[in-house]
Amino acid sequence: MKAEKLSRAGSPELDAILGKTFPVLNDGFVRVVDYMGNDSTIVQAARVSYGDGTKKVSQDRGLIRYLLRHRHTTPFEMCSVTLHVRVPMDAWRQWIRHRTASVNEISTRYSIAIDAAQQTDPKEWRIQAIDNKQGSDGFVDQQSGQALTDQETELHNTIRGVYNGRLEQGIAREQARKDLPLATYTEAYWKMDLHNLLHFLALRMDSHAQKEIRDYATIIGEEIVAKWVPSCWEAFLDYRFNSTGMSRMESELLAAINLDNNQAIALAKEFGWLEEGKNGLKNHRERVEFEAKLIDWNIEIPWGK
Amino acid sequence: MKAEKLSRAGSPELDAILGKTFPVLNDGFVRVVDYMGNDSTIVQAARVSYGDGTKKVSQDRGLIRYLLRHRHTTPFEMCSVTLHVRVPMDAWRQWIRHRTASVNEISTRYSIAIDAAQQTDPKEWRIQAIDNKQGSDGFVDQQSGQALTDQETELHNTIRGVYNGRLEQGIAREQARKDLPLATYTEAYWKMDLHNLLHFLALRMDSHAQKEIRDYATIIGEEIVAKWVPSCWEAFLDYRFNSTGMSRMESELLAAINLDNNQAIALAKEFGWLEEGKNGLKNHRERVEFEAKLIDWNIEIPWGK
Amino acid sequence: MKAEKLSRAGSPELDAILGKTFPVLNDGFVRVVDYMGNDSTIVQAARVSYGDGTKKVSQDRGLIRYLLRHRHTTPFEMCSVTLHVRVPMDAWRQWIRHRTASVNEISTRYSIAIDAAQQTDPKEWRIQAIDNKQGSDGFVDQQSGQALTDQETELHNTIRGVYNGRLEQGIAREQARKDLPLATYTEAYWKMDLHNLLHFLALRMDSHAQKEIRDYATIIGEEIVAKWVPSCWEAFLDYRFNSTGMSRMESELLAAINLDNNQAIALAKEFGWLEEGKNGLKNHRERVEFEAKLIDWNIEIPWGK
Amino acid sequence: MKAEKLSRAGSPELDAILGKTFPVLNDGFVRVVDYMGNDSTIVQAARVSYGDGTKKVSQDRGLIRYLLRHRHTTPFEMCSVTLHVRVPMDAWRQWIRHRTASVNEISTRYSIAIDAAQQTDPKEWRIQAIDNKQGSDGFVDQQSGQALTDQETELHNTIRGVYNGRLEQGIAREQARKDLPLATYTEAYWKMDLHNLLHFLALRMDSHAQKEIRDYATIIGEEIVAKWVPSCWEAFLDYRFNSTGMSRMESELLAAINLDNNQAIALAKEFGWLEEGKNGLKNHRERVEFEAKLIDWNIEIPWGK
Repeated sequence: MKAEKLSRAGSPELDAILGKTFPVLNDGFVRVVDYMGNDSTIVQAARVSYGDGTKKVSQDRGLIRYLLRHRHTTPFEMCSVTLHVRVPMDAWRQWIRHRTASVNEISTRYSIAIDAAQQTDPKEWRIQAIDNKQGSDGFVDQQSGQALTDQETELHNTIRGVYNGRLEQGIAREQARKDLPLATYTEAYWKMDLHNLLHFLALRMDSHAQKEIRDYATIIGEEIVAKWVPSCWEAFLDYRFNSTGMSRMESELLAAINLDNNQAIALAKEFGWLEEGKNGLKNHRERVEFEAKLIDWNIEIPWGK
Repeated sequence: MKAEKLSRAGSPELDAILGKTFPVLNDGFVRVVDYMGNDSTIVQAARVSYGDGTKKVSQDRGLIRYLLRHRHTTPFEMCSVTLHVRVPMDAWRQWIRHRTASVNEISTRYSIAIDAAQQTDPKEWRIQAIDNKQGSDGFVDQQSGQALTDQETELHNTIRGVYNGRLEQGIAREQARKDLPLATYTEAYWKMDLHNLLHFLALRMDSHAQKEIRDYATIIGEEIVAKWVPSCWEAFLDYRFNSTGMSRMESELLAAINLDNNQAIALAKEFGWLEEGKNGLKNHRERVEFEAKLIDWNIEIPWGK
Repeated sequence: MKAEKLSRAGSPELDAILGKTFPVLNDGFVRVVDYMGNDSTIVQAARVSYGDGTKKVSQDRGLIRYLLRHRHTTPFEMCSVTLHVRVPMDAWRQWIRHRTASVNEISTRYSIAIDAAQQTDPKEWRIQAIDNKQGSDGFVDQQSGQALTDQETELHNTIRGVYNGRLEQGIAREQARKDLPLATYTEAYWKMDLHNLLHFLALRMDSHAQKEIRDYATIIGEEIVAKWVPSCWEAFLDYRFNSTGMSRMESELLAAINLDNNQAIALAKEFGWLEEGKNGLKNHRERVEFEAKLIDWNIEIPWGK
Repeated sequence: MKAEKLSRAGSPELDAILGKTFPVLNDGFVRVVDYMGNDSTIVQAARVSYGDGTKKVSQDRGLIRYLLRHRHTTPFEMCSVTLHVRVPMDAWRQWIRHRTASVNEISTRYSIAIDAAQQTDPKEWRIQAIDNKQGSDGFVDQQSGQALTDQETELHNTIRGVYNGRLEQGIAREQARKDLPLATYTEAYWKMDLHNLLHFLALRMDSHAQKEIRDYATIIGEEIVAKWVPSCWEAFLDYRFNSTGMSRMESELLAAINLDNNQAIALAKEFGWLEEGKNGLKNHRERVEFEAKLIDWNIEIPWGK
């Protein structure tokens, strides 16, 4: 490798939105504070491992796609981004579980807590899902929503009153804050390398993620990462976010289906996927997941539906 | 190294309290779920690096002390412990900032939130410290304390009423929880290796840590780690928790003091520690910290007090 | 969660082989020094998040399979194992790239280097692969192999002679070792949690991993992990090691194939997978990978082969 | 915090040497490929936690010094640097033990190994230290040095001949390399955040580090970090690299010395530091370390020397 004079890798599209505030929820935001690297950084790091030669941009895109498809990780770690985020502590509790980030968060021991908690629009109150114990499904009617929102506003006011009262009485900030709502906004600088950021996005943009954090993740992905490292983002969507995993059993069943449906049925029975209950087949989560894939692939379900 | 039949390293003193609940705060606790390794594990791991020979227990203790004194880290990583903790989310927010742990926490998307928030005894309301912006200093009088506690109880009831009402209306658990108080208890399994646990304890047993998390850290240190790895714990106290750091300037000043006070004063001036203000010396944090050390060491402050 | 008296989670099958040496390569080995947790530990940690109720063992196995299928990670981190390994430094260079381990390795600054470098049997000299720049493909003939092995032996003797000569002349161990062969054996204690160990095994048991480290990984997987956490191991094979990923394009193509081959061909062209070269289709790595899957699934390749 | 248009934080002094090769050892180097952040980044991240207000540059320097003195870590993590290094694998084995880095290293499975191993000048052959089992002490005489260097050259040629011969016979690169000397140069991109980089430098610039890696660390510190984040570097030297730690026992002894030497002697006896051997005091490592500090501080050793 030859040593030459360098300048820093940059992304003009990201430079154009540096510091720009992207609103999220009723009073949250995300903005880029700083970053390091671009699509070429990924390519260059990968080529350290493999030697080089002059390569065209078209090959760069192909290499990035190859790296992502084959789950290479270290070249993506060479890029980093620092975001300034304003998030309800409730969502932040999920966010902070990603341990590979560097974080500086407002201290409410040192400062007075931000005077805002996430507010819910009357149209946004979600109903508990039945089939998914940790999800939601649909919204309450407008009238109920309005009542819930009014109650929420009143509750926020009550709690804030208690907090302010404690501070006025001289109670330590670190203790006065103890009964603030989980939805109180916090702010932080959050730095992540691109490999770990993509992992964060894969989990948090997913339809199973809670809506609040999903809103943040979607903005980060579509407004920031897509501009910063466009080839990488496209590869992420094709090979990761919109990819499908097939277990050993699913592969074997698919192979059997293309030979003979009866063989496929026999195999599924062997897997314990086709136990009879009182009303047809017993519920079996893996079978149900596989059936959904077959439907997507326009393949008839061998054991009927 | 010879390969022989092994049995697992254990600690009878820790075995005796496995699963035992140590209460913390009004309704929290810590208990040991499982662990791996003991004092000998540390020694054995260190000896991999250095070869061995039969060594006596007295030498084991000496080696552990040597390793801790010289800030060796990897031998301590060979031990791990899993705790089951019940902690107010407020303190948990500080706890979870230690990124090297493995954590499984109750999901309040999946389950109903624990029906308890940390309650403050009338005698425990702390006053905001003046000199330490993020600390507390003393307690409010009993009458005020009683009023604050009564108000706290009422607030908890109000908030819980809203939470329960939302659930009854069918609102998704993941959304209904949003206004629970930060002091709501959560529970988690928390696994940490010994090296990182000692780091956690050094920070969280410190007098600058918030009282709530300090209570947990103290129990973990004194009731659990002290029994599990007694030589390591003793070394931790002597070489880390009760150790003192001296900067380059402090070392130079101490050397100067022992030659000639005037030389020490000249040096302190050079460091910018002795600027005159309207009423004597201007406040200078490093000088004040150094003066406190001199007093501890029975050394007269060269520039007076 | 109720607090009760506990004893440590154990695995009788692993206890039975604690300390037992599994030979690898001509003079290497792997043995278990200590461990923490078992299949139930994974289940118990997951249930912290979801509450519990009495569950049968059959449900435990199902939960572990569910967790692995959906790429949950933290419950698997609750188990850890410490291995004592003897490995050529050459393979160790790859091994140590897994950053989540705790490691204590023999110091050849402190001790004399192990007097053994990996030796190659005449039948084991591998030929450079053409299509895979970083792999091998087949073996040289016996006569060439014998000559290579003889040369290897002589080279090891020469180098060892130089090393010993330097030590005899009083050269510092840290410098004398500088020209030892990369294949010199080293020993280490290596501790890993189960989640990261499975990741290690997925990469290093893979057919693309270098044979030397693959031999170690296979022993660790099949002789150790399979005994320690049998349900987890089985799930790992079904949902990870023997699973297949499908990109967005592959899913779309599979769906098209099941409707109409021409539509599939049009789509593949759109993806740029079917560019004509001088002698039929140009080589395209993604298409080739997809064709291999179609063959496995007994599906005819729409554009022929 | 107000959102405004930003540009990236930069360091003109570091920009001026971006890509510049700093030679190390006979054929190694370090050069900066890219970086993120500067002194102000540290300050800005810290102020997120504490709120802000307009602050002068003089206060910035003071804040950085405060943060480093009190071992704050996260603000320093906000800066990162990527280095391109060429290092003997022998030193690289120590380097790579720092697990928080992102690394892309040349693959000698994929490419032919670099045709250079570290060569030792006749004046540079070091003698094994007696008192420090893992160190060196002085150099061999010129004549012996010349003989050792000649032997080294010949050995490198022999080994390279074998390596090239294997490749010519078609042996796979991944296997042919197995007997290359540990001192063979490798190259890598190595990315580290500033907090972890300072930790690396504290350990590897230390006089106990092996000379080879110390040479690299010193160049990185003095030529790169000092230019990149000058206030941070200065604070690092004052509060970390040139700081001294005092154990509980040392603090207690210093306090006793300043009251009454006999009391100090009694205390040292209690600590077990003054056991009599056949020829005066038995060797005791902690006492010896403390005596060295007393001498530095111009304090008489109470129990004589």
